[in-house]
Amino acid sequence: MTMNTPTTTHSKNLNKYTLNPYFRELSFYISLPVYVRVSEIEKELQSGVKKPFKKLYKSIIGDCHAMGQIPITFIRQVLSIVTYPELLRSCEMPEDVKSRAKDLLMACAGHSIGAYTAPFGMEMVRKHCAQYITKRDEGLPSDWTNIILGNGATSCIKSILHLLQCEVNSKRSGVMIPVPQYPLYQAALKEFNLHQINYYLDESSNWSLEVTELDRALLESKKVSYPRAIVIINPGNPTGQVLTRKNMEEIVKFAHVNNLIILADEVYQQNIYDDNSEFISFKRVIMEMGLPYSEIELVSFMSCSKGYMGECGIRGGFIEIVNMDPFVKNMYMEVVSSLLCPNVMGQIVLDLVCNPPEKGEPSYDQFILEKSKILNTFKEKARLVKETFDSIEGISCNPVQGAMYAFPQIHFPPKFIDEAKKQSREPDDLYTVRLVDETGICVSPGSLFGQQSGTYHFRNTILHQTDDLKEMLYIFKTFHENFIKIYS
Amino acid sequence: MTMNTPTTTHSKNLNKYTLNPYFRELSFYISLPVYVRVSEIEKELQSGVKKPFKKLYKSIIGDCHAMGQIPITFIRQVLSIVTYPELLRSCEMPEDVKSRAKDLLMACAGHSIGAYTAPFGMEMVRKHCAQYITKRDEGLPSDWTNIILGNGATSCIKSILHLLQCEVNSKRSGVMIPVPQYPLYQAALKEFNLHQINYYLDESSNWSLEVTELDRALLESKKVSYPRAIVIINPGNPTGQVLTRKNMEEIVKFAHVNNLIILADEVYQQNIYDDNSEFISFKRVIMEMGLPYSEIELVSFMSCSKGYMGECGIRGGFIEIVNMDPFVKNMYMEVVSSLLCPNVMGQIVLDLVCNPPEKGEPSYDQFILEKSKILNTFKEKARLVKETFDSIEGISCNPVQGAMYAFPQIHFPPKFIDEAKKQSREPDDLYTVRLVDETGICVSPGSLFGQQSGTYHFRNTILHQTDDLKEMLYIFKTFHENFIKIYS
Repeated sequence: MTMNTPTTTHSKNLNKYTLNPYFRELSFYISLPVYVRVSEIEKELQSGVKKPFKKLYKSIIGDCHAMGQIPITFIRQVLSIVTYPELLRSCEMPEDVKSRAKDLLMACAGHSIGAYTAPFGMEMVRKHCAQYITKRDEGLPSDWTNIILGNGATSCIKSILHLLQCEVNSKRSGVMIPVPQYPLYQAALKEFNLHQINYYLDESSNWSLEVTELDRALLESKKVSYPRAIVIINPGNPTGQVLTRKNMEEIVKFAHVNNLIILADEVYQQNIYDDNSEFISFKRVIMEMGLPYSEIELVSFMSCSKGYMGECGIRGGFIEIVNMDPFVKNMYMEVVSSLLCPNVMGQIVLDLVCNPPEKGEPSYDQFILEKSKILNTFKEKARLVKETFDSIEGISCNPVQGAMYAFPQIHFPPKFIDEAKKQSREPDDLYTVRLVDETGICVSPGSLFGQQSGTYHFRNTILHQTDDLKEMLYIFKTFHENFIKIYS
Repeated sequence: MTMNTPTTTHSKNLNKYTLNPYFRELSFYISLPVYVRVSEIEKELQSGVKKPFKKLYKSIIGDCHAMGQIPITFIRQVLSIVTYPELLRSCEMPEDVKSRAKDLLMACAGHSIGAYTAPFGMEMVRKHCAQYITKRDEGLPSDWTNIILGNGATSCIKSILHLLQCEVNSKRSGVMIPVPQYPLYQAALKEFNLHQINYYLDESSNWSLEVTELDRALLESKKVSYPRAIVIINPGNPTGQVLTRKNMEEIVKFAHVNNLIILADEVYQQNIYDDNSEFISFKRVIMEMGLPYSEIELVSFMSCSKGYMGECGIRGGFIEIVNMDPFVKNMYMEVVSSLLCPNVMGQIVLDLVCNPPEKGEPSYDQFILEKSKILNTFKEKARLVKETFDSIEGISCNPVQGAMYAFPQIHFPPKFIDEAKKQSREPDDLYTVRLVDETGICVSPGSLFGQQSGTYHFRNTILHQTDDLKEMLYIFKTFHENFIKIYS
């Protein structure tokens, strides 16, 4: 963290030599060539520049509403009343919506969502989250005082990783993360000076986690770091796999033997499409395995941005901490409390997701209809995307069992790989820029998420409206078949 | 950051020896004796325990809505429509409210507040913030690309301080902060391992900043740190002072000579009560001073939690960065982008605050009426609080020229100071606990904000409803007069 370059030769106090050194090498994704190109094309289209396509098919971010998904009526009606309580007098609002809004307002200081809440969030909301977890885990208890609300799962994840920024036995702390993985983890580890311990998911076995690979990664890392935690994303992002209980038990044993904290990114817990898969929480697995596993330190992350509701812009998330040292928990609360409180609208959406309308209530039927329509469409699109990619020469795609993405592998012709290398570019990076330039289809290159050396992938969301998705897949197929012809 | 205590003797991976060392010594305010007591009393009152008072007078946090302030109708109507656009058909919503809501929805991806925005916030909102600044600064231009939105001013402040976590010339970076100051700064400096350089405000000269004191503080700090920035809170929290232009120019010259970044906490810019004071932004001062001062690195913080709107729970804030190194700005965007985007409701409230109804629009009259009523009441209460405290024997209080607090000094009888010392307690800390125990009045002890050694203060908000405030001040006066009698 020392930087001896004299700053007196630089006109600015804050410059690249005096910036937090862990920030200097961040490259999350804003500067990714394909994303830069997407912004340029967007502006070109707006200003009337002629293109070989009429619109962009943005398949980059897991952002449901941006792709035309309609918000859940129940959630939005409650939000409108809590923001403007005059609407309690409206005869167009269902009675259960009004009663929810009233309860939430009563739980706010001064009966206003404009008041601060407790730093970990409103007690009522935390209790509803705990109830949701108990129901999800088939009756296993959840203590509401272990629920901590935040401005989205991302900020929760970052705040937990920040706790680990510490040298232990004169070594940097290390955190195991899957490859491929959602790039937030790479970025956050850099930001907090944590050593990144890559473990590779096994693509040939539907992106499963092999304990031999975990052992290899951990052993290698011990030379340079003190391992603290293992991140598991289940359902997988970008991979779309759903872990089996057997695989989870192996991971738990591995974590126990190595005294690692399990950081379970379970934000896609409501997004399961495969008939033979089910979401099982790590909390449930450790508790059902019993001692000594039930004493493992575990943090699970949940969000209101995913699932069927897709309320990304609201920024609501929560964590459940299990078996955390009480001193650490207190200090964590001190850190969190300096931010005063998570935004109240995010807290309220989480409340409604954890405590949805019940059978017999006026909003129930419509709520179930909207929710199941969204999840059924996701399921159909998950199948459609996998099958289409798999049917294209030179592309193979594992099933999208859950989450919101496919992560197909592209087998590039050697001629194209050579061309990319001549340009000092990653082949998948070059490919995605070509793709958007010629077709308007934007996907994320595999190198953003990490991949086995010599393999190439891209991540594609399944969130387009169905007709758009079909159109996009057709255009993609045509592009790729032509691409293969050119380079064969 | 090294911690050699072997962790193997501790059952938890994450324990007090392996926690981020900068977090270990945090003591923000959750654990402050008076706040702990307030929570206990709240529960006792709820469960029917008899007390010498019937209710708590919470005078701790600048939380307007919690104190019964009614939200601004215009803001809340727009929020209700953007959350539930069906309300566009309501005939009870004014036309300008509908048109604002439509514009905002058009600016959201998929026309939904549930979609992510750009990491620095929506372009439209950032442009409105820049327009607001231009108007506030009497025409001085503001570049919207220098406006960055966040989840409240607090998270903006923390993210800027985090940029400075760096050793320069083998020394820790140091940041100058006022004493007394809003305790966020102390906590954030600890969290990011920044050296805290205290400069004392001059209570005898209405909490002004004396350059001789700045020089003293800086010189002293240079032995152990490399000074990077100076934080100025104007209007002052907890002090309530409003800086004069002359004083600001002195500070600017000081910052220039010492190549310091100015971090201007200007969240109370709309809260000015003194007829002879006006809010002048540091941006305006440096620009009007011209070269070389107009090239100083400056970050200004603004919030939707203060002003007349007091929307704390929404968590909206923005910063204007001036003269920031482009490399640093890019890296800052990378860090910010890992959090995806600030919550959209916060962005929208900022949009409305920066772009309020204009004369001739249907909502204008009511908006002005509500806004001026709130600000006029604040003004009246600022005077009332100052005069009442000043009239009490053993208490002196500077004028509350702005912000939301009075910070009176209490001259404790030596007998009480001895008693506190015998209990190893700070006298102001002990006093505030006594006060709440006997009267239900909760104020914050001066030691939380820092104060000159041997002086004692407390911070009291001016946010109670007027009748409540009068009642509270009467009870306080009686308590204090009795207290003085006992200890004289």
